Amino acid sequence: MEFTIRAPCSSANIGPGFDVIGLALSMYLELHVKVDKSKTTSEKILNCGITYEGQGGQGSVSLNPERNLITRVALYVLRCHNQRAFPIETNIHIVNPIPLGRGLGSSGAAVVAGVFLANEVGQLGLSKARMLDYCLMVERHPDNVAAALYGGFVGTYLNELKPEDVSRLEIPLSEVLPECTGGVDTGLKPPDPPLNIGHYHQFKWAPEIQCVAIIPQFKVPTAEAREVLPKSYMRADVVFNLQRIALLPIALGESPPDPEFIYLSMQDKVHQPYRKTLIPGLTEILQSVTPKSHPGLLGICLSGAGPTILALATENFEQIAHTLIAEFKTKGIECDWKLLVPAHDGTTATYKS
Amino acid sequence: MEFTIRAPCSSANIGPGFDVIGLALSMYLELHVKVDKSKTTSEKILNCGITYEGQGGQGSVSLNPERNLITRVALYVLRCHNQRAFPIETNIHIVNPIPLGRGLGSSGAAVVAGVFLANEVGQLGLSKARMLDYCLMVERHPDNVAAALYGGFVGTYLNELKPEDVSRLEIPLSEVLPECTGGVDTGLKPPDPPLNIGHYHQFKWAPEIQCVAIIPQFKVPTAEAREVLPKSYMRADVVFNLQRIALLPIALGESPPDPEFIYLSMQDKVHQPYRKTLIPGLTEILQSVTPKSHPGLLGICLSGAGPTILALATENFEQIAHTLIAEFKTKGIECDWKLLVPAHDGTTATYKS
Repeated sequence: MEFTIRAPCSSANIGPGFDVIGLALSMYLELHVKVDKSKTTSEKILNCGITYEGQGGQGSVSLNPERNLITRVALYVLRCHNQRAFPIETNIHIVNPIPLGRGLGSSGAAVVAGVFLANEVGQLGLSKARMLDYCLMVERHPDNVAAALYGGFVGTYLNELKPEDVSRLEIPLSEVLPECTGGVDTGLKPPDPPLNIGHYHQFKWAPEIQCVAIIPQFKVPTAEAREVLPKSYMRADVVFNLQRIALLPIALGESPPDPEFIYLSMQDKVHQPYRKTLIPGLTEILQSVTPKSHPGLLGICLSGAGPTILALATENFEQIAHTLIAEFKTKGIECDWKLLVPAHDGTTATYKS
Repeated sequence: MEFTIRAPCSSANIGPGFDVIGLALSMYLELHVKVDKSKTTSEKILNCGITYEGQGGQGSVSLNPERNLITRVALYVLRCHNQRAFPIETNIHIVNPIPLGRGLGSSGAAVVAGVFLANEVGQLGLSKARMLDYCLMVERHPDNVAAALYGGFVGTYLNELKPEDVSRLEIPLSEVLPECTGGVDTGLKPPDPPLNIGHYHQFKWAPEIQCVAIIPQFKVPTAEAREVLPKSYMRADVVFNLQRIALLPIALGESPPDPEFIYLSMQDKVHQPYRKTLIPGLTEILQSVTPKSHPGLLGICLSGAGPTILALATENFEQIAHTLIAEFKTKGIECDWKLLVPAHDGTTATYKS
């Protein structure tokens, strides 16, 4: 059995849609998986073998299957189905171009890929809807995981769980979540996730719109980026975001795109203003780069918790990128940049024929 | 010169869209206007003559042109254009079926009708966009006035004004606004409103969806309904509403409508929970009447600041109405009800040929 799982990176929030909007983008975490069932006991490996190439690399990404986020999630899902480990002999080669801790949904892609991995090696036959429940047991914010799983431009929401289910999060995902039980082989089957924790709706995306991702060469841990947010918001700021998020899914679906309409509907007062302390240059960038100053630009926002900046545009991508890179450079920050488009298919598993 | 102005009633918020969403509905404030230019001085009347029939009636609606909301707004707009009064001899017969203080946008319709009235009698040639600016100088919440002016199902937002313009509200609209200057003939031309105070976007509305309006026989003054709202909101409640308002304009535009999707996207934690103290039975109604219990029902919400309840449905309108009326009756409250559809044309002026 030999197959490849591809899970896209994603950008959350897109301005006013804090913890709501996800956009899957065309950079993919890949798992190249081989299961050699001819072996009945494994001589070389415990549980499964992991090799890794790409972002982060040796050291920052664990190759221990009980610690690596992808395989730990897969083991949790397998154990919920009374399978205590990977089939003998499973080898996984991870190729990850998604930079870690930059607001491009690297951990969301890892969680989704882990659930997919369990579904394939364990032959569990889970629907994507049920896979989302498993993802949300690890990462209770649905924006990145729903985008990575289903693909495209999505609006997400959580159902209200029973009180006893609210605190049930099975995997310690250090960036976002506090430590919690589960994901460790206790010999007991973990309890099944509640049904229908979260939902998504796929919005239209105008085909003219592409995404310039400016990726500064420093990390912003998601936990820290949530720390700086206030616990409560003034009513005027709430209304400001409600007014804009009501328009955003419509604005980005209209073809041809209307730059002024999109620019206005991407304004935010719920998370970006508070994160400027973590991202030098953010305020200047959000204020100074507009559709008027840069023809082709539609709107600009922080990608997830940052530090990546996402500029939506229809043309002049390179010019827009260079302006933003130069702005960061004045603060002593180097950046990479990539031109991305929506990944409409979401996560896929393809078998070698 | 003889013409009729028709301004629709409207429902604001529609669940999560507090101060954002407006829906113009098929019940119209009408002004039947005659201007007799054959007279050079008026013997009978000062400024303009007003007669009134309909909701509220004698006593609660002033027939003094300097006090009546419609003509006071019209006079403000005329004075901004150096016309100190109505042309001699203007007579206005107001026919108003929109109940006052029930959350159906009676004052929004009055403000829009007033601006329209000035535009016609003064032959000002204002665009609807500029008329919206005048409306927003009286009523700074754009949801009802934009819906009444443009018609249909709209998302609205305010631009950020210059600090010196924020407090400029020209007409004392007692229900919503504090007393302020303007609207009184000081002999001086009032300052022009800023340009582009507010904007709107018209959303699709699925043709199958009609609106059952349950109108309790008591008033909730808008000022009081705003008093009960908190000044700040917990982040979780903000995210709850952002998640739902992102979906609502899409959900109500899809044909055929999806009851489960619409019902969920109409949930709110920003205004309805706080207004239950003002509207006996509201909590029970919002919780007990669902698409499952009442086939044909799509969603249910407070109309504006209430007390009117709006139930969106595709069939069984009468049955839904009777359930809701019975629920209010258990609290000792009598209700009227109306079946309304979106008023897509907004406010119009039609001349007698």
